[in-house]
Amino acid sequence: MQIVAVQHVPEIRPGTNLSECLREAVHRSGWNLQPRDILAVTQKAVSKAEGRISRLGDVVPSAYSVSIARRVSKDPRLVEIILRESRRIVRLRGEVLICETHHGFICANAGVDESNVEGAESVTLLPKDPDRSARILARELGCGVIITDTFGRVWRDGLLDAAIGIGRVPAFLDFRGQTDPYGHRLRVTLLAAADALSAAAGLAMGKTAGTPAALIRGFDWEATDDTSAAAMLRPAERDLFL
Amino acid sequence: MQIVAVQHVPEIRPGTNLSECLREAVHRSGWNLQPRDILAVTQKAVSKAEGRISRLGDVVPSAYSVSIARRVSKDPRLVEIILRESRRIVRLRGEVLICETHHGFICANAGVDESNVEGAESVTLLPKDPDRSARILARELGCGVIITDTFGRVWRDGLLDAAIGIGRVPAFLDFRGQTDPYGHRLRVTLLAAADALSAAAGLAMGKTAGTPAALIRGFDWEATDDTSAAAMLRPAERDLFL
Repeated sequence: MQIVAVQHVPEIRPGTNLSECLREAVHRSGWNLQPRDILAVTQKAVSKAEGRISRLGDVVPSAYSVSIARRVSKDPRLVEIILRESRRIVRLRGEVLICETHHGFICANAGVDESNVEGAESVTLLPKDPDRSARILARELGCGVIITDTFGRVWRDGLLDAAIGIGRVPAFLDFRGQTDPYGHRLRVTLLAAADALSAAAGLAMGKTAGTPAALIRGFDWEATDDTSAAAMLRPAERDLFL
Repeated sequence: MQIVAVQHVPEIRPGTNLSECLREAVHRSGWNLQPRDILAVTQKAVSKAEGRISRLGDVVPSAYSVSIARRVSKDPRLVEIILRESRRIVRLRGEVLICETHHGFICANAGVDESNVEGAESVTLLPKDPDRSARILARELGCGVIITDTFGRVWRDGLLDAAIGIGRVPAFLDFRGQTDPYGHRLRVTLLAAADALSAAAGLAMGKTAGTPAALIRGFDWEATDDTSAAAMLRPAERDLFL
């Protein structure tokens, strides 16, 4: 399996034809997309193309946002935007505001992000329906697509990229019921394939190089319509760790 | 970056010279280890070579283990072994027993595992000091080494491989203080590099093929003595999500 950052992706703006842009960048990086390739694309690139950008100056914060903003030492207008993207606040601690987004992702600032956006007072929001965005990109590009974002984890330091939208690529590799070389039946081995690919792709892309996509070639997968990042979310009542 | 499963690894038994075994297998897979390569090796392979195997028949369960075993429908002797490897029980739910190991890893059954072990009544324990094991392997092999194990996560379904021992390879890629192409300073971007590599390596290895190692080539890293998987563990009092 090869994982390489895609170079030559131009500045993406609202209305940019993202799939054309990515195909061209892959081509200029010396590759041609094949049906069994997987393109990992950052949330940031997708959000920009879809116009999911808010300007702080356009927002009037509610009294609630002002009060939360004071507790976490953030701009109240930013907090207002974050709370509009949130189903609930999961944790307030120090300057950290962890929310559950309307999609069900649990992440810092509900995925609202100031980095890698043009304009000092602009922030990106997560795509409205990242699985739909990924399916459309996959159809247009004729390959697998994973839209990634960067998440903190429980119990371990450091961030990992994970899948927030999936097109064609299975979310999981399911080894349950298969037997190991000694004849033991594997009982609970459902690998989070899309997240593992996202994590490695995030590493290949880095954070500062302006490379919002990575090409994954040589991973053994079968295309499926029955896939989504939403299906990877584990409802709290089924969570074994909480 | 390329990630390929290492074929031709023979059965590993207590006393097997693991580094020799792995070097030979890499060679027979058509590669030669280079200083900038990283070899991901499963906990299972390391534990077997180090003789970290327990036989259920050798264990007399305590009354406490018998009572826990009844609650989770497990063999009391297995529970006895699990609890000996544990600092505390984190969660008991259904048939799932999640423990914090003496190293500080939080995982199902304290990492005690029945799969891919010779002998019906044998289980592997995690290596005693996986960072030390990884450092020794890295020195003997002359490359980076990550010892991996498979973990469940909070909030998301599916398992991911993560680093439990690291030799030479940095645990994190630190982008903090760097600026994005728009001049924004990145504030909290510390990527869990060793975990991302572990996750992708776990995918390349699969679970049933008897391939307990993967070669990672082309990842851009600097060798360091100041690295460990232990440093990736986040103490509960610093945990933003709990």
